[in-house]
Amino acid sequence: MKLSRFDHLNCPIAATLGVVGEHWSLLIIRDAVAGVRRFDDFQRSLGIARNVLTSRLKRLVAEGVLERYRGDRGRYEYRPTRAGLDLYPVLVALVQWGEQHRPHPRGPRITLVDRRHGRPIAPLAPRSSTGRKLEPSEVRIQPGPALAARARPTRI
Amino acid sequence: MKLSRFDHLNCPIAATLGVVGEHWSLLIIRDAVAGVRRFDDFQRSLGIARNVLTSRLKRLVAEGVLERYRGDRGRYEYRPTRAGLDLYPVLVALVQWGEQHRPHPRGPRITLVDRRHGRPIAPLAPRSSTGRKLEPSEVRIQPGPALAARARPTRI
Repeated sequence: MKLSRFDHLNCPIAATLGVVGEHWSLLIIRDAVAGVRRFDDFQRSLGIARNVLTSRLKRLVAEGVLERYRGDRGRYEYRPTRAGLDLYPVLVALVQWGEQHRPHPRGPRITLVDRRHGRPIAPLAPRSSTGRKLEPSEVRIQPGPALAARARPTRI
Repeated sequence: MKLSRFDHLNCPIAATLGVVGEHWSLLIIRDAVAGVRRFDDFQRSLGIARNVLTSRLKRLVAEGVLERYRGDRGRYEYRPTRAGLDLYPVLVALVQWGEQHRPHPRGPRITLVDRRHGRPIAPLAPRSSTGRKLEPSEVRIQPGPALAARARPTRI
């Protein structure tokens, strides 16, 4: 429903939001990427109504972001697919923005650190193919064949 | 309203989604970062109802993500604040995921390229403080003081 609603925008951001652009879906993916597998654990973590959780999980499975499998004792569990794991940069970008621009009065909620030495990871930033950090102004939005027929070259 | 709804989750992702976790808001920010300034141009770009656009713009200004100013001919225009521009990595992560996992049948919609030589930028990835690329499994989620009182150390 959401996908078709935003299809006419023909934008990769809109396409992604069609899959995960709703609070609960991204928070479910957050939990799945952090290792949550069971319905009851998602439910407890999110404090979400069971029928809402059921419908969101079903949708994320249909979208190929989560996969359902039989876990211990034959119960269904959910784990991220490759496409789900590939949302990791989205989650990291959201964590970093939230900690910077919506800090908690008691200090950091989460620091993402490199396991090897425990130091915080770098702020996510676009980089050139050679790894050089780029300012947004150094990045050009190049419309591809799927946009060429339209007159919206300034779209990100 | 959304913020308070998700406040109890005490998570920087939830905090960010409280500001921008709704389709239109992120698409408005996308346009603003790409240079759209005027109400009518946002409206045309998004095909959104005027009353909905009015309320979303008002909210984004209240959240400090957009700023309203008098433009040419005294009309109000909107531009991203520092906090709004800092959402750039979120937008890039959404573009890259969308192009990879929801490709358009006619090919790429958008390629983000380095202005200097026109080559595509690198896929966003978490990196250590020294710039080394990290797999998600190499990143540890370290709960800070604002989470320490709670028993949710696995949250991203």
